[in-house]
Amino acid sequence: MALRMSTLFLRTLREDPADAELPGHKLLVRAGYIRRAAPGIYTWLPLGLKVRAKVEAIIREEMDAIGAQEVQFPALLPREPYEASNRWTEYGPNLFRLKDRRDNDMLLGPTHEEMFCLTVKDMYSSYKDLPLSLYQIQNKYRDEARPRAGILRGREFIMKDSYSFDINEAGLQKSYDAHRDAYTKIFNRLGFEYVIVHADAGAMGGSASEEFLAVSDLGEDTFVRDDAGYAANVEAVEVPQAPAVEVTAGPAHVEDTPDTPTIETLVAALNANHPREDGRSWTAADTLKNVLVMLAHPDGTREPLAVGLPGDREVDPKRLETKVAPAEIEPFEESDFKRYPMLAKGYIGPGVLGEEKASGIRYLLDPSVAEGSAWVTGADEHGKHVLDLVYGRDFTADGTVQAAQLREGDLGPNGRALTLARGVEMGHIFQLGTKYAEALGLKVLDENGKLVTVTMGSYGVGVTRAVGMIAEDNLDDIGLVWPREVAPADVHVVATGKDDAVFLKAAEIVNELEAQGLEVLYDDRLKVSPGVKFKDAELIGVPTILVLGKGLADGTVELKDRRSGERRDVPVEGAVTEVLREVKGEVAGA
Amino acid sequence: MALRMSTLFLRTLREDPADAELPGHKLLVRAGYIRRAAPGIYTWLPLGLKVRAKVEAIIREEMDAIGAQEVQFPALLPREPYEASNRWTEYGPNLFRLKDRRDNDMLLGPTHEEMFCLTVKDMYSSYKDLPLSLYQIQNKYRDEARPRAGILRGREFIMKDSYSFDINEAGLQKSYDAHRDAYTKIFNRLGFEYVIVHADAGAMGGSASEEFLAVSDLGEDTFVRDDAGYAANVEAVEVPQAPAVEVTAGPAHVEDTPDTPTIETLVAALNANHPREDGRSWTAADTLKNVLVMLAHPDGTREPLAVGLPGDREVDPKRLETKVAPAEIEPFEESDFKRYPMLAKGYIGPGVLGEEKASGIRYLLDPSVAEGSAWVTGADEHGKHVLDLVYGRDFTADGTVQAAQLREGDLGPNGRALTLARGVEMGHIFQLGTKYAEALGLKVLDENGKLVTVTMGSYGVGVTRAVGMIAEDNLDDIGLVWPREVAPADVHVVATGKDDAVFLKAAEIVNELEAQGLEVLYDDRLKVSPGVKFKDAELIGVPTILVLGKGLADGTVELKDRRSGERRDVPVEGAVTEVLREVKGEVAGA
Repeated sequence: MALRMSTLFLRTLREDPADAELPGHKLLVRAGYIRRAAPGIYTWLPLGLKVRAKVEAIIREEMDAIGAQEVQFPALLPREPYEASNRWTEYGPNLFRLKDRRDNDMLLGPTHEEMFCLTVKDMYSSYKDLPLSLYQIQNKYRDEARPRAGILRGREFIMKDSYSFDINEAGLQKSYDAHRDAYTKIFNRLGFEYVIVHADAGAMGGSASEEFLAVSDLGEDTFVRDDAGYAANVEAVEVPQAPAVEVTAGPAHVEDTPDTPTIETLVAALNANHPREDGRSWTAADTLKNVLVMLAHPDGTREPLAVGLPGDREVDPKRLETKVAPAEIEPFEESDFKRYPMLAKGYIGPGVLGEEKASGIRYLLDPSVAEGSAWVTGADEHGKHVLDLVYGRDFTADGTVQAAQLREGDLGPNGRALTLARGVEMGHIFQLGTKYAEALGLKVLDENGKLVTVTMGSYGVGVTRAVGMIAEDNLDDIGLVWPREVAPADVHVVATGKDDAVFLKAAEIVNELEAQGLEVLYDDRLKVSPGVKFKDAELIGVPTILVLGKGLADGTVELKDRRSGERRDVPVEGAVTEVLREVKGEVAGA
Repeated sequence: MALRMSTLFLRTLREDPADAELPGHKLLVRAGYIRRAAPGIYTWLPLGLKVRAKVEAIIREEMDAIGAQEVQFPALLPREPYEASNRWTEYGPNLFRLKDRRDNDMLLGPTHEEMFCLTVKDMYSSYKDLPLSLYQIQNKYRDEARPRAGILRGREFIMKDSYSFDINEAGLQKSYDAHRDAYTKIFNRLGFEYVIVHADAGAMGGSASEEFLAVSDLGEDTFVRDDAGYAANVEAVEVPQAPAVEVTAGPAHVEDTPDTPTIETLVAALNANHPREDGRSWTAADTLKNVLVMLAHPDGTREPLAVGLPGDREVDPKRLETKVAPAEIEPFEESDFKRYPMLAKGYIGPGVLGEEKASGIRYLLDPSVAEGSAWVTGADEHGKHVLDLVYGRDFTADGTVQAAQLREGDLGPNGRALTLARGVEMGHIFQLGTKYAEALGLKVLDENGKLVTVTMGSYGVGVTRAVGMIAEDNLDDIGLVWPREVAPADVHVVATGKDDAVFLKAAEIVNELEAQGLEVLYDDRLKVSPGVKFKDAELIGVPTILVLGKGLADGTVELKDRRSGERRDVPVEGAVTEVLREVKGEVAGA
């Protein structure tokens, strides 16, 4: 049944909504696809629900094609399984927690590893039952601290999550590869640019993990890639150790550098009072910065850590945190400094850092610090720095750590220059291994009658986020421009003017289009001007627009391509055929 | 793609699950449709999800047919709108409440009157935008005190809820009638016996309300009907006032009736010590029982109420509560008796009851008490009763109230005898009127440019409950027997034995059936005995079963009708045609 604009629950807005920041999000609200119900929580209006259903259908199709079976778990869950996996605690304030009338702790599911694991445990007991892949398309909940990106990052959102169960690592690899292929097909169909990046798997106890990132400046995630196809999010990049260089510096010497607690003041003072012999200026890159942080361990203990890196770089907290997980990074406070009086704030150097040194604080170097390189760094005394301090000759560290913010041009693991870009995580595939199965006791009998722990994978696609990303990536100044496969309708028929004949003919064409299996949005409003109708059609963004108006007297109607803006008159008798050609042609060619 | 038993996520159980009480619920668990995740919270396994999707599709079809538009609101909602409608408080412990990370109160939606009302208010402003009907199919939440009936009464469940918006009462009546028709069509297709009953609308502030009850002894709701088509739930029945009778009793007289604080002891004492002149025995029906309760008003105040009714009847708390709403009924405690020393517990009579009497307690009579009738009742003194006390001659009351439990044979509003039955509420349609629109300020401009409050209706169907009810109403000793339109598959193909030829032929037939558009469940398990396969097929309950086995050598296969148990051999070449005839024939005839 055609959607008729005269009755459709829709009110397009000419002004941007106050609560939207991203261009696509603004258009989704203005064009009547979604509406905010509470911060980070959205209502899906008829047009939005149509698009969402199409995205879901694509995902369902590709999941079914790899033999994954659809189920649906509850969204409201008991605490116990999440306690067993430790996620009840680990999720922190992102988890919506509540109590029922009997004071039982419950939660709104963020993802369902535990529940799937327990159900498989309950039902299956033999290697013969495996492999198994299950999925669901369902409301998920995460209490985001700053839900500002519309449906790109909601607090209630729809996700397709799946879980694979295999008898061993080889089986997991197959299930993982099947999901990777299915996700590739899904994202190829959805209509935005994406890249598959290596992701960090360490914290989840798994062995491999990749993310499907929509390439977009709107993204909160930074990733890197090289020109040979390598791509990874910054947490997962392991940059190579800078190769050793020949020592050319003379002996280290301590100099007075009063009032130089920052890199800027130090470089200025060096250039003013300690000019280099070769005439070059000192830069921040010549200095070695030693950054102190506190590691907060899950058991509640805190431990200091010092990271040495060139003065022109910053520590990337996300990258560092990945390496020290499950510990989290907290600032090194004034009160901490008081407990380590040997640390001369602003002038801290390798002289006191290291497990064997005066502070006893573990000291790790970023791999950009090369053996044999000479540095200006703190002399562990206020107002003094040491120059020509050579790594490997004059000081050592307890190891290295991937800690520095990456920069355009840094060499990646393949030895090629990296470029940086931003992305939005649209999918995540994950070799979980046995972490959850061990915590919840999911074992089956193997071929030899021996109990073995099941090996799991977990895989997610953000469904509502995908709708948001498609919108962000398919718009122009005047509205949305949906890719055909997810558009709320195949064609938008607009009847203009006040001539009954136009509306009669339009209704006839609408019926014919529907008889051909097309979905039609029909603007049958009587007292609305052509200008408003055109503006609405452009805003709503159905890919093909068919306009009936004055030209009908001469036997012509106008066919508009929303994306290119191209218009052409076609004879009214051929209109249905022309529309079909547009719709099917593009789908076939997609 | 056929569901194959060899890989289907399914483990049928031979034993009843410990956590299920109802026969259909036990079978749904045993046959692998659902599984309990927590009390009142269920997981939908692949077969269950198929049935549920078919029920949803039927509902969607009938809602679309009346022009209702599908939307989806969030399940996690802010407190404020529910505060404005007072439901935040009224819902009491049935509402799941929680706080987000910023300490905002939130709730899991039980129904969405408030949210729909606010969204329409936000988008629409004129009578020209009406009428409007919106619906959603969505997870709902109610923290049931005793979630013991499986998916018939879950704490997380799926409901189709719709809301209509009209400019006036006449419009509401049309929207209501359209929903009533759609619901009739839906329930006619779902495969269980149902009845439409008048329901009480008073508490919700609306003007009319009907329930669609599945007729079932499993039901928690009692309803009545007469042989002229009248039906109502007990809360909504208004039984007529018993007509006045001629006074035949002599003057009232007080008698000693020591140790008779209960109706039983009183009747025994009367028969022993005060035989009737006409020789008939005294029965409980000759006594007038005066029951005291406390009304708890929403503002926190409590008020006593006395209800007089024949001693052979009990007060029906649900019926009485409907009449005193929004007050709730609480017991009249010992401490309350202390505050009313004129009440002689066990011997309370109309002598002290009534707003004008010593106690000042409002005194209402059940309509079964006829003017002119004579009663034995308390004499307001311990050990004493008054006999031949005539209503209207010797005592009066402050009014009447529909309070007594109804009995088979009681006369209904049409003056016809009522029969009682039990039912499960499957749907509810409700003329809300302006209650929510007023509370939330939903007004539009009428034809004269005047702001008028919108008139709303709300309508609900329990989707997961419907699946449960279909199961309860379609089963036998050996398993489920799905009605065709909601069965998880059209046909269950069972290949038995170890002969490759059987499995090859079965696979071929499965393909042919699918090519004809049928949904097939295919038992392709290699190492499972025919007996187990037949038991599983009977338990799962697909309406048509096609068995391939030894007979194939002679060119025959067996076609079984799950409901009738009828089996017949058909030639293998004609098997697909026969199956099609079974499937289509019954659907066409349904």
